[in-house]
Amino acid sequence: MTTEDLISEIKRKKSFLCIGLDVDLNKIPEFLLKEEDPIFSFNKAIIDATHDYAVAYKPNTAFYEAHGIEGWKSLERTIKYLNENYPEIFTIADAKRGDIGNTSAMYAKTFFEAMDFDAVTVAPYMGRDSVEPFLTFQDKHTILLALTSNEGAFDFQTKDLEGEALYKKVLKTSKTWKNSDRLMYVVGATKAEYFKEIRSILPNAFLLVPGVGAQGGSLQEVCKYGINKEIGLLINSSRGIIYASNGEDFARAAGREAERLQQEMQTIIHGL
Amino acid sequence: MTTEDLISEIKRKKSFLCIGLDVDLNKIPEFLLKEEDPIFSFNKAIIDATHDYAVAYKPNTAFYEAHGIEGWKSLERTIKYLNENYPEIFTIADAKRGDIGNTSAMYAKTFFEAMDFDAVTVAPYMGRDSVEPFLTFQDKHTILLALTSNEGAFDFQTKDLEGEALYKKVLKTSKTWKNSDRLMYVVGATKAEYFKEIRSILPNAFLLVPGVGAQGGSLQEVCKYGINKEIGLLINSSRGIIYASNGEDFARAAGREAERLQQEMQTIIHGL
Repeated sequence: MTTEDLISEIKRKKSFLCIGLDVDLNKIPEFLLKEEDPIFSFNKAIIDATHDYAVAYKPNTAFYEAHGIEGWKSLERTIKYLNENYPEIFTIADAKRGDIGNTSAMYAKTFFEAMDFDAVTVAPYMGRDSVEPFLTFQDKHTILLALTSNEGAFDFQTKDLEGEALYKKVLKTSKTWKNSDRLMYVVGATKAEYFKEIRSILPNAFLLVPGVGAQGGSLQEVCKYGINKEIGLLINSSRGIIYASNGEDFARAAGREAERLQQEMQTIIHGL
Repeated sequence: MTTEDLISEIKRKKSFLCIGLDVDLNKIPEFLLKEEDPIFSFNKAIIDATHDYAVAYKPNTAFYEAHGIEGWKSLERTIKYLNENYPEIFTIADAKRGDIGNTSAMYAKTFFEAMDFDAVTVAPYMGRDSVEPFLTFQDKHTILLALTSNEGAFDFQTKDLEGEALYKKVLKTSKTWKNSDRLMYVVGATKAEYFKEIRSILPNAFLLVPGVGAQGGSLQEVCKYGINKEIGLLINSSRGIIYASNGEDFARAAGREAERLQQEMQTIIHGL
């Protein structure tokens, strides 16, 4: 999917909501456990109930790998279902991969070609040649970890590296990489004021923002500093939507919660 | 496996060789492609031919994920084969994972419990709470990326962060984490003199060293600065061993190449 397609979808739906499909068998409604593939059944119901309010879905690979081959099948079924039924949806494999060049190339093929995700999250620690193999794929997007939403972000990411925070060095350095226009960035919502400086470095890039909701970040605050003229944000919510209820009505409850966030986003878009 | 078990195995075999099982279907002998699971057949033959000379095996998950469900099966068969037939071997999932706490915990369960690897490689960028979930597993080992062997290592890892190279800050900071005695570190062989400073920070930790052989690092140089009284090194070789021949004799050729490295290591151990 091109960035332009993503932007038109955001404008059409008046939403920049990404739904994290981090499916934990201990948290989904019990009656689903009788299904052949409970994770896929859960995802299908959630997607069908929320797709009018969301522009992106983001399965975190950890939750699928944890179930071995069966989990891998659930992930493949989920991305196939999205691509076949909702081709307008932007799909993100939240995999946080990154390795030496030829190995990163294999990860890129896995997620971009074999599974046909639109985007994959990648860790920056190993530098340019660990990320550029992902950037060779046209109309695919690599979402680089910059400033994450967890406490450990303050261990290294915000520390001063040659005169500026490491995460800012990551942002600036990555702009010099080949095909860097295919980069997006993970920026946690936990400190909204960071977005001001991030936007001065990256006025146009899309930012994938976890940490709104369950992790305590404020949508209003993030948008105040982070939104740009093409919106430029994908706000992720996982637990707050997919576990809105664990009864028979779980999908409808997820739909209502997604709609509530979409309405908040619509108000913000109208106020621009 | 305990660290003590690994050390006795190193002393018994007079080897600190780790063999990287980075299996590429384009590089293995063609006649194996007729097998039901060519990757596992290749691994089994390589392991059987080399296990006398190696103390560890390290499949890189990228090479397995690239084949989707079939690749995942090959990985599961490989670790099962190792655990059942060579329980004295130290097994490493080269996965380079790392995510927020509850998600890292899922990755840890996948590799330590479901697949029963002895160790997994983990990226440090997300800090303490992304690594500590791996460290809660007794007799399991978390191998943290510190200084990698690729060119991109110079983008961030060697840059000055608050007065010292980022990779040294990673080493020092990680020592303060809970159960840090379960940490080992990836340190590339491309600059042997780095090992002197690394040993001043971590006199006792095990270092997993890629980059010897195909990537140009020297075994002698690495050992000169990196070895400690319990050896404390696992030297990885992948392509140089597993692709020593792509004919019918591939396993024997791999065995000879592994033996050659083991002999070099034996000489080094005797010279201590």
